[in-house]
Amino acid sequence: MQWKSQLHNLKAYQPGKTMEDVKEQFNLEKVVKLASNENPFGCSSNVQSFISSEALSHAIYPDGYAKQLRMKVAGQLAVEPQQLIFGNGSDEVIQMISRALLDRTKSTVMAAPTFPQYKHNAIVEGAEVREIPLDGKGRHQLSEMLDSIDETTAVVWLCSPNNPTGEYIRKDELLHFLDDVPSHVLVVLDEAYYEYVTAEDYYDSIELLKTYPQLVVTRTFSKAYGLAGFRVGYGVGSIDVISKLEPIREPFNNNSLGQGAASAAIDDQAFIDECREQNRKGLQQFYEFCESSGLKYMKSQANFILIDFGISGDEVFQYLMSKGYIVRSGQALGYPESVRITVGSPEQNEELISLMKEFLALPKQF
Amino acid sequence: MQWKSQLHNLKAYQPGKTMEDVKEQFNLEKVVKLASNENPFGCSSNVQSFISSEALSHAIYPDGYAKQLRMKVAGQLAVEPQQLIFGNGSDEVIQMISRALLDRTKSTVMAAPTFPQYKHNAIVEGAEVREIPLDGKGRHQLSEMLDSIDETTAVVWLCSPNNPTGEYIRKDELLHFLDDVPSHVLVVLDEAYYEYVTAEDYYDSIELLKTYPQLVVTRTFSKAYGLAGFRVGYGVGSIDVISKLEPIREPFNNNSLGQGAASAAIDDQAFIDECREQNRKGLQQFYEFCESSGLKYMKSQANFILIDFGISGDEVFQYLMSKGYIVRSGQALGYPESVRITVGSPEQNEELISLMKEFLALPKQF
Repeated sequence: MQWKSQLHNLKAYQPGKTMEDVKEQFNLEKVVKLASNENPFGCSSNVQSFISSEALSHAIYPDGYAKQLRMKVAGQLAVEPQQLIFGNGSDEVIQMISRALLDRTKSTVMAAPTFPQYKHNAIVEGAEVREIPLDGKGRHQLSEMLDSIDETTAVVWLCSPNNPTGEYIRKDELLHFLDDVPSHVLVVLDEAYYEYVTAEDYYDSIELLKTYPQLVVTRTFSKAYGLAGFRVGYGVGSIDVISKLEPIREPFNNNSLGQGAASAAIDDQAFIDECREQNRKGLQQFYEFCESSGLKYMKSQANFILIDFGISGDEVFQYLMSKGYIVRSGQALGYPESVRITVGSPEQNEELISLMKEFLALPKQF
Repeated sequence: MQWKSQLHNLKAYQPGKTMEDVKEQFNLEKVVKLASNENPFGCSSNVQSFISSEALSHAIYPDGYAKQLRMKVAGQLAVEPQQLIFGNGSDEVIQMISRALLDRTKSTVMAAPTFPQYKHNAIVEGAEVREIPLDGKGRHQLSEMLDSIDETTAVVWLCSPNNPTGEYIRKDELLHFLDDVPSHVLVVLDEAYYEYVTAEDYYDSIELLKTYPQLVVTRTFSKAYGLAGFRVGYGVGSIDVISKLEPIREPFNNNSLGQGAASAAIDDQAFIDECREQNRKGLQQFYEFCESSGLKYMKSQANFILIDFGISGDEVFQYLMSKGYIVRSGQALGYPESVRITVGSPEQNEELISLMKEFLALPKQF
């Protein structure tokens, strides 16, 4: 078989332990997962009403153009419907961009650490991956990213707020970057955590599309909207760019219920506002814990926080898991001495903080 | 922007007219769509029970490994769970295979006309497409396909029953082909319509996997299972082949409800048996119509029939649409003088046949 050579060392995604696995392994009655930046408050009650009432036949193919959802999102963002492309999660938008622009003759620039699917897809396409380290505060170094662009560079990936640091790109930095980036480069701005942002010097990325035709913004219904199970994300860009991506999209890539659920969820912005506020309060709980315990952390604009324990993140992860809390060890995220914690409900946050205090009070092993 | 050159002439999928569009355009109260080979009997009642009762949080990511569904399908087919790869429809399995094996240095062999996504994905990857015409009976010419394979050939696509002809590959032909195909070629056997097959000289493709490690079989829940809206399909192959494809799969490509719906649907094989039988009866209605009207047609093992009217298929399509029946014109399917009709319910078939008789009785225009 003639497998592409770039795939020889590519690993399949290793699914984490399920809540059931952990319950069984540690004989626990309750397990809380704060590992995948899911919404601890679920999703809008509109979604359940939609699912219960929906009269569509499951046997019928989805609307490939996602017209209802498209009109809703276009209205919300005040963009033309043709400026949107919908994906099976924003993961698939990343994949479509990679398939359209990357191959063995191209390079692509991204921060490190950042969301791993940019690199993964670039490897699948055989492109050269140029990773520019985040600075010590977990922020993109945009001028270094700019310096690494050459005539082979087809795509630059920006993640803001960035996963796993929660840090964001400042408006003035982004504008300088977009002014200076060569016109042969597509700039992808991944705003998966957009709905959680409260920083005042954040930009209006949709507004920027009017000035910068080489920009594509990606967003998702998997985070604040609480629809990760349905797989709905989208890209927004100029009509010209989106029309180049559309032929890559599979005809029926967005399932029917996901389209309907996302449409229903958009109508409940009060839910999003409430989640944003709860998330701020939750982050505050973690900030206070870190400060009182002398732990380094990064201020987050997302629904997670990266906390530096100064020892192996795996050790912290294992301890918390044995107590019923699943978080993400920083080991696989490029921060080996940290853990990344999804902000949970106030009670979950409090309980997890107590467990972390317990862990810190354990006698140190040398 | 550095779009891949092979994409310059690639067209985005053009969605057909919706039932709503047709209702409005022709001022009709009832519109029946027999154009996309969907199941006119819907899906198992198990699926609606699952949807109503399911207590999963939509905010949680799907099980990326699709464990429950995987175990169900593995049990049904008597294969190892690691022999399966699940896709967002079997369309996505076709895409994953193409991404893993095709590029500008490779060629790929397929019949023509056949399911268009093989060619579409090959073009996206920049591979050379070698199309071997079906014979006059709508069947794959396997020896010609074999002859067109050379050292650049990475994938051969077989579609059986073939879309849009409904014809199938005979067991002895397939065995000869598999015995003779060079070992550097992956053979994909697309069995999207498998559940409808009743021919006695059909093969057991899953059994063949034991003998031919270069074979991958694809199947779907979108046709007989009536779950097109959910997007669930899969590939079955050797553990070695599937493990090469897994790194290409997006971590959460199969939505949660689709996984559950497909699991629930598998448990109701009586529904599938009933649909197969109804489909046979429906085909018989169309065969009798064709014979009594002197129209050429192809015997079908699928849930659709290609009927040759000897005039532009578009004309037949337009007439039927104006009467509220949406079928597929053969114009875009490689059979310009035919229409492809999905077998509907007995009443739908009867009504459509009356309309076709009406059409044939119209005074001919020269």
